[in-house]
Amino acid sequence: MKGNVIVGQSGGPTAVINSSLAGVFRAAKDLGAGKVYGMIHGIQGLLEGKYIDLSEYIKDGLDEELLKRTPSAYLGSCRFKLPEIEADKDLFDRIFAILEELEIEVFIYIGGNDSMDTIKKLSDYAKINGSQIRFVGCPKTIDNDLALTDHTPGFGSAAKYIAASMKEIIRDAYCQQYPHGMAVIVEIMGRDAGWLTGSAALCKADDCVGPDMVYLPEVNFDIDDFLARCKAIIEEKDVVVVALSEGIRQADGRYVCELGELTAYEDAFGHKQLTGTADFLAGFLARELGCKTRAIELSTLQRAASHIASLVDIDEAAQAGNAAVRAAAAGETGVMPIFVRTSSAPYAITMEIRDIHQIANEVRSVPREWITEDGCNVTQDLVDYVRPLIIGELLPVYVDGMPRHLITPDLV
Amino acid sequence: MKGNVIVGQSGGPTAVINSSLAGVFRAAKDLGAGKVYGMIHGIQGLLEGKYIDLSEYIKDGLDEELLKRTPSAYLGSCRFKLPEIEADKDLFDRIFAILEELEIEVFIYIGGNDSMDTIKKLSDYAKINGSQIRFVGCPKTIDNDLALTDHTPGFGSAAKYIAASMKEIIRDAYCQQYPHGMAVIVEIMGRDAGWLTGSAALCKADDCVGPDMVYLPEVNFDIDDFLARCKAIIEEKDVVVVALSEGIRQADGRYVCELGELTAYEDAFGHKQLTGTADFLAGFLARELGCKTRAIELSTLQRAASHIASLVDIDEAAQAGNAAVRAAAAGETGVMPIFVRTSSAPYAITMEIRDIHQIANEVRSVPREWITEDGCNVTQDLVDYVRPLIIGELLPVYVDGMPRHLITPDLV
Repeated sequence: MKGNVIVGQSGGPTAVINSSLAGVFRAAKDLGAGKVYGMIHGIQGLLEGKYIDLSEYIKDGLDEELLKRTPSAYLGSCRFKLPEIEADKDLFDRIFAILEELEIEVFIYIGGNDSMDTIKKLSDYAKINGSQIRFVGCPKTIDNDLALTDHTPGFGSAAKYIAASMKEIIRDAYCQQYPHGMAVIVEIMGRDAGWLTGSAALCKADDCVGPDMVYLPEVNFDIDDFLARCKAIIEEKDVVVVALSEGIRQADGRYVCELGELTAYEDAFGHKQLTGTADFLAGFLARELGCKTRAIELSTLQRAASHIASLVDIDEAAQAGNAAVRAAAAGETGVMPIFVRTSSAPYAITMEIRDIHQIANEVRSVPREWITEDGCNVTQDLVDYVRPLIIGELLPVYVDGMPRHLITPDLV
Repeated sequence: MKGNVIVGQSGGPTAVINSSLAGVFRAAKDLGAGKVYGMIHGIQGLLEGKYIDLSEYIKDGLDEELLKRTPSAYLGSCRFKLPEIEADKDLFDRIFAILEELEIEVFIYIGGNDSMDTIKKLSDYAKINGSQIRFVGCPKTIDNDLALTDHTPGFGSAAKYIAASMKEIIRDAYCQQYPHGMAVIVEIMGRDAGWLTGSAALCKADDCVGPDMVYLPEVNFDIDDFLARCKAIIEEKDVVVVALSEGIRQADGRYVCELGELTAYEDAFGHKQLTGTADFLAGFLARELGCKTRAIELSTLQRAASHIASLVDIDEAAQAGNAAVRAAAAGETGVMPIFVRTSSAPYAITMEIRDIHQIANEVRSVPREWITEDGCNVTQDLVDYVRPLIIGELLPVYVDGMPRHLITPDLV
């Protein structure tokens, strides 16, 4: 490699998205790239001329280690949807003019489904117009819903946080006694895919009873059946703990959160923003059963909790960044590295390269057979699949009792 | 010591309440106590004849280590308020009959304000009736509001979780750009005392801007002033992050959460249950400013997150349990061990014994001079006071990627 590399981060952040950034930086430097630029707030910032020279911020090995342990998108993120090429050719011309000005040879975009759509369009445009710039995606999403890859960096750490928090919530739930019992409803991210919510089941062991029910968006939610089950469980053992996805819907297609007073609104990609499912169902159970209820929304903590990141996940995130740069250096464009699981026990993976057209805009859901027949829990197959991804810890560097992060560039 | 010891846990759990239990168990064994019993669900369970022999559950040093790292009340908790002695002498007679049947010499109750009221009444009753049983309290509360003691076991770990989570939430908040900016409102436990909410400020360092505002229940909340400040901060830097106590009130005495649709209800001690403050204020800002908002309630996780407990806190919790038993063995009754800070830098404490009558039913608030004059943040004095209490980590024992806890007795 002789030219320069530019890297951006896009979409929702994760606890390990910066480990991929560290992987990109390391591989680019090792392969002899010139400058390694970072787009500030992704392609949206790039269009406004916002970027940094990463070498000014990642100065030594300690900075690389801190970057791996720093949550959220170090470069800032965006949710900027590129139009179809034919719809706004000028926009594409502007992007390519900036990239050529910066003498970019390799463009890496760390993101999920929507970001892979960006890679697809930019690489298509380059091919059509004879540009030599290579565009490679680097997989990232806590939702674990990217197509083709066995799993996605960011998922393992979110799953570890969710399962560990669920284990602590369950201990807490059983400590008090209430005259009419208690229901704890834990709302977990996941609009269309239930991988994260399913991971709540990983806390079940001989030292934890696990959640009583786990509701994924892959299965229709029936509120009457839910009520009957909660009632029966409270009658049996006083406490019911439920994990559910923010994206669960009824058979009529309505999101459960839309049954309450809070309304959903849409983001730039046309995705409904979902919130309030746990609050609504907790209120519903309080009215119907007279029990004590507690609604817990894990909120952004589940994607930002680098203090309990999975070591496997952090390492694989760096590997993915590394593989993306190496693929581009080898001449690939319009591709994304994927993880292929060659063995589950012992866990072993290899990385391969796939055409971005097979990945962008596809969603990989939890297979129906990994959800129990009654639709209220996950099977051992799902647990066995997730388990290797949450193994190991990369401890924060604690300074004054707090996890230390790499100082953010002023522009973000 | 020749007789038996009985220990109970009461009130809201903490991440380190079981470290105190481990300290009680170890001291009792070291001092040659006979049996060490554990009340199941505190004095309420004891009245129903529910207790265990702790030696059957804590079998070796590894079990003691796991117990220290296990969140929530291992023995189960209760919120049972003892009546005045004159109001129900029969109840006291029943309790003492059970204790005499079990040949109890020392009764230890691990809890907060309400639990110290229990110790006060039981020790008073013993004195009046010539019983030789000694009753000693062991301080515990995440709220840090017990009188006389410099601080309370459970607080440091909750403060560490809150500050670390706040640091991750702030990183996350700054990563996306929104057309009209974003407000993040984080709701933290604390009905009357703002120690926990104030601890959110500990994340501020050169790698974190810290929360923009910190609202404690010690100061009246003015919603117009709040709105004006949020507006100004969003205009300046697009993002405002606010930490606030669930117990903040207006000058007219109304809780802020009561301004919304959710209603407060009272628990057995007549305390209002507060929830929905962040939700209400996030909705308020969205309507008034048109900004993106996010309401985050740290919920029970802040008292249960043993995976990021403070080492100082875990150690001191065990010391408090130990000191309670030793005080009783030395003949004390109607007392509680307190922490006296002899030096802040370097941090040093001693433990002393105080009359429970000086402690029960008192609340120790954040001093007004540790809150900034405008009432919207805390001073460096508060940060310097809390800092030593969040230092150090006692890592969980991870098994299959999950923190391992001591298996709970069947009865809980």
